[in-house]
Amino acid sequence: MIKLVLVRHGESEWNKLNLFTGWTDVELSDKGREEAKLAGKLLKDEGYDFDICFTSYLKRAIHTLNGILCEMDREWLPVIKTWKLNERHYGDLQGKNKAEAAEKFGEDQVKIWRRSFDVKPPALADNDERSAKNQPMYRDVDSSFLPQNESLETTIARVIPYFLEEIKSQMKAGKRVIIAAHGNSLRALVKYLDNLTPEEILEVNIPTGTPLVYEFDDNFKVIKHYYLGDQEALKAKMEAVANQGKKK
Amino acid sequence: MIKLVLVRHGESEWNKLNLFTGWTDVELSDKGREEAKLAGKLLKDEGYDFDICFTSYLKRAIHTLNGILCEMDREWLPVIKTWKLNERHYGDLQGKNKAEAAEKFGEDQVKIWRRSFDVKPPALADNDERSAKNQPMYRDVDSSFLPQNESLETTIARVIPYFLEEIKSQMKAGKRVIIAAHGNSLRALVKYLDNLTPEEILEVNIPTGTPLVYEFDDNFKVIKHYYLGDQEALKAKMEAVANQGKKK
Repeated sequence: MIKLVLVRHGESEWNKLNLFTGWTDVELSDKGREEAKLAGKLLKDEGYDFDICFTSYLKRAIHTLNGILCEMDREWLPVIKTWKLNERHYGDLQGKNKAEAAEKFGEDQVKIWRRSFDVKPPALADNDERSAKNQPMYRDVDSSFLPQNESLETTIARVIPYFLEEIKSQMKAGKRVIIAAHGNSLRALVKYLDNLTPEEILEVNIPTGTPLVYEFDDNFKVIKHYYLGDQEALKAKMEAVANQGKKK
Repeated sequence: MIKLVLVRHGESEWNKLNLFTGWTDVELSDKGREEAKLAGKLLKDEGYDFDICFTSYLKRAIHTLNGILCEMDREWLPVIKTWKLNERHYGDLQGKNKAEAAEKFGEDQVKIWRRSFDVKPPALADNDERSAKNQPMYRDVDSSFLPQNESLETTIARVIPYFLEEIKSQMKAGKRVIIAAHGNSLRALVKYLDNLTPEEILEVNIPTGTPLVYEFDDNFKVIKHYYLGDQEALKAKMEAVANQGKKK
């Protein structure tokens, strides 16, 4: 039985402030750190173990993974960090709250950027200090690959090739994999794994800090997926995520 | 100018209890976590930056590195974990305090194990639960490589080949390297880099949580080495380490 575990990072400082985050490298909140620990405890209690871990370049995902590994007593596992698993890049919306964004671009427009599959928000300028091209984190990445804004569609276009080339190859070699990442980079994976339409994936709200397990047969066909943990609490959490989306 | 930075992990829970630790995977104490943060702050303030990090399989070294990277805002850097940088394996002394060890083996004998270059303490049995062969951490390592006890000499015999093959090659490729490890795995490196005799290396006491910088010329000849930070405080710290050794 081949399994893959996905975990969305816990609450960040900017989630609390309701700001567009994207590639902004914000810290987990205390609640977010607690969510990571609980995810680790759940995985340990259910007997999960891993051989290799993947996460993004962003500290809210890295710290979530570290918290999980600490609870599981698996600090020594190899961890691969890649910008290909970063959150969707929110372009010039990054750092703005809904009110500011609506004031600058109009409420209807902001709604389109948030809820559409293939429409990108406005790009960051190359000389914007928020641009990845101006940050040490991406100094080893060919800058022509670095986006200044992304739709869910273009996020998928970087996540899935990475998954197929780097992660699936590890799974094929018999390695048990955990991925700690972000709402939209995980949506990209879920769309691919469950073969969802653009409309369907936009309805999927992945709860934070909750291990999502995919089971595959020997031909790498998905048999089923499920979240670990108390299913009633989970339902409430998923509704909260969906409503948070609506309120933004 | 090629530089290499070495950091010994901060105080662990077992340092406080004065137990032989070796490969036992104990946590940093609160003081140890604070030392890691201070090392990171020092490196950041002095303008250091890195491209790749190396550490051991043991959480006191991994957490020290994580604390440093957090202070430097460099969580996204690649981190390579290897058992080859583990602390010297203390065999059957692991988990015992000085009094227990002296009672079981005699005080003079324990002194020889602690202060000699090439004498190993008694080996752990293969079926001892403390043996690396019985721990998930080493399940991917060929068990014929796993020691049941080590002298400083045999510690050197695993650290230096790893350094030459895996770390020096990164430095030659222009990568700036930091290594977070242990008193004796770092002694192994220091002996090699400074070309010390067995007698000389036994006199070297590397203080915890204090960045030790080596500078090399283009032919990889060591030009000089120095500790970062307040030199008076450092002197006191080194004396404390030396005295701690004597008291044990």
